[in-house]
Amino acid sequence: MSTKIRYTVVGAGHGGKAMAAHLALMGFSTTLYNRTPENIAAIQKRGGIELEGYEGGPHGFGQLERVTSQLGEALEGADVIMVVVPSTAHVDVAKAAAPHLRDGQIVVLHPGRTCGAIEFVKALHDQGCRADVTVAEAETLIYASRSEGPAQSRIFRIKEAVPIAALPATRTDRVLEALAPAYPQFIDGISVLHTGLNNMGAIFHPALTILNAARIESTGGDFQFYIDGVTPSVARVLEVLDRERVTVAAALGIRAQTAQEWLKMAYDASGADLYEAIHNQTGYYGINAPSTLNHRYIFEDVPMSLVPIAALGQHYGVSVRGIDSIIRLACIINRTDYWRRGRTLDKLGIEGLSVSEVTRYVNEGVRD
Amino acid sequence: MSTKIRYTVVGAGHGGKAMAAHLALMGFSTTLYNRTPENIAAIQKRGGIELEGYEGGPHGFGQLERVTSQLGEALEGADVIMVVVPSTAHVDVAKAAAPHLRDGQIVVLHPGRTCGAIEFVKALHDQGCRADVTVAEAETLIYASRSEGPAQSRIFRIKEAVPIAALPATRTDRVLEALAPAYPQFIDGISVLHTGLNNMGAIFHPALTILNAARIESTGGDFQFYIDGVTPSVARVLEVLDRERVTVAAALGIRAQTAQEWLKMAYDASGADLYEAIHNQTGYYGINAPSTLNHRYIFEDVPMSLVPIAALGQHYGVSVRGIDSIIRLACIINRTDYWRRGRTLDKLGIEGLSVSEVTRYVNEGVRD
Repeated sequence: MSTKIRYTVVGAGHGGKAMAAHLALMGFSTTLYNRTPENIAAIQKRGGIELEGYEGGPHGFGQLERVTSQLGEALEGADVIMVVVPSTAHVDVAKAAAPHLRDGQIVVLHPGRTCGAIEFVKALHDQGCRADVTVAEAETLIYASRSEGPAQSRIFRIKEAVPIAALPATRTDRVLEALAPAYPQFIDGISVLHTGLNNMGAIFHPALTILNAARIESTGGDFQFYIDGVTPSVARVLEVLDRERVTVAAALGIRAQTAQEWLKMAYDASGADLYEAIHNQTGYYGINAPSTLNHRYIFEDVPMSLVPIAALGQHYGVSVRGIDSIIRLACIINRTDYWRRGRTLDKLGIEGLSVSEVTRYVNEGVRD
Repeated sequence: MSTKIRYTVVGAGHGGKAMAAHLALMGFSTTLYNRTPENIAAIQKRGGIELEGYEGGPHGFGQLERVTSQLGEALEGADVIMVVVPSTAHVDVAKAAAPHLRDGQIVVLHPGRTCGAIEFVKALHDQGCRADVTVAEAETLIYASRSEGPAQSRIFRIKEAVPIAALPATRTDRVLEALAPAYPQFIDGISVLHTGLNNMGAIFHPALTILNAARIESTGGDFQFYIDGVTPSVARVLEVLDRERVTVAAALGIRAQTAQEWLKMAYDASGADLYEAIHNQTGYYGINAPSTLNHRYIFEDVPMSLVPIAALGQHYGVSVRGIDSIIRLACIINRTDYWRRGRTLDKLGIEGLSVSEVTRYVNEGVRD
């Protein structure tokens, strides 16, 4: 039964290649799409991806059904479309996919960052797509993986529990059911506001990069990002940003996880404060800083994660001055207006909604 | 004639000791005051300060007239009172001095940071001081010096031109005339808004500290502050803050110096951008970063320099979002509300004034 689900993976980066190979190895009919033909030429030639894994993990040659740069072809006949691209590309994927989507198809963003599914649905709608498509988002990418060659991938870890939510949430069960044969790890994420507001990268990535700006740029990132880069004062900034995020969630009636709760849950790392908890996460040792400030920790996490959190905060009366400070410095450093590029409420199509209206929208899909 | 001016130096730190010794060596009757008796006990015992200097600079034993922790005694008979304390203490000095000040006395803040003289005059007024005192501020401290022992001081450099302005500016001539026999280096600073808005430390100190936060805290400041600590992106932040400062000045009808103009003037250092100009200032090589984030670059420069610049910007319609971001992060890092501690317009007593009213106030001393 499980093999009846036909998958299309959109994006052949680190995550997309791992997912496509893994799905194929699990016996699912899998299509891999990438916009740039050169990026998948070697995979096309071999007909699949060679997957290496950790001890006991999936490995072997994942034979793909199709490998294509034609999106229409890629989406045709797919039951589930796994979008594994940087969140800055979600809108472009939605616009390009809109004419090709059909009733009953499921689209899952891996991950949505913050408000990814809302933005995707809005883009489909704006493009005139009237197909009955279910859009969902994962809270984080299920794989830790790396592309190790043009047609090679290595999976280091598969996360054990990843929340997922559909827009509207009434359709989350349908998505979980479709994914379950391949991924029993996906669990009910309640709503896309929950998955989006539990975005820990939003808190960790940009602030750590900014508060280590000079060192990153003068050393090319040659220091341990979470160890040398997180000092007691820096952790204090993270705590304030985290509190702002959790408070934004609370204003929307949502109990988001704190960074400390998340470190405890995900890594069993704890401590008296965030500084201690981070330093007690052994997995952080040895991870170096980004080599440049022109990095996805800024150009993706600021517009796609911090901006929507700040925008929600401003709209629903929560002080987000710490988050706003980081956004502002990021704008200056990379000479980019991340507010203009980012997921503001008008771009998400939820600019006029009250808390009960936005709640009803994400839960039931109803817009008054 | 020159020796007729009687000086009192308030503050026996690095700057105050150098100034007192130097004035005494120039033949002026000089009193040294410090609030804490222990800090001047050795000077009191010896009756003066041993000054060492650079080649050709002032040196020798500066015999002091009085060394005291009694402010009333210190101020009695003084013609010019040189206040050489951190600007965070200006209000306290004003409050303590208020009952003792007499008609005709001159008070000079070394330096005022931003709006120091305005704050000082307000504090005198609030304390009911009705003496006809002239308050002035220097744009920067005239000495580069270090206290090298309890009764020793070393001067490394005496700046060649230091702008000074009285409040109101109509009295600047009187101050320059009184100081000229000792300090021909003081020049007309136009008004206290000019001296306050040409405060370069406001731009350099807090932002560089924040954007090097993790490195300062993890290395104890063991890197070159202006060289390793100023990378192209960090310099971009400084440029934006500097532009905000200069724009605030412009909104008040003042042409402030840019940081690049200042580097050119003060050090003959130039370059295509601020990054280059800073790296072409040979004097910056070898200067290490602060060893901690609990440093005057934050706890003095944020409330006494950045806050008044930002407050003026907000009141007169200038975007100061970059400056505000740095203030906010400083508040978080040192768990202190620097807006509450800082020189806001209400604390300065100029909260309701239009541009022409504040201009008239600093130029002529007239409040409508």
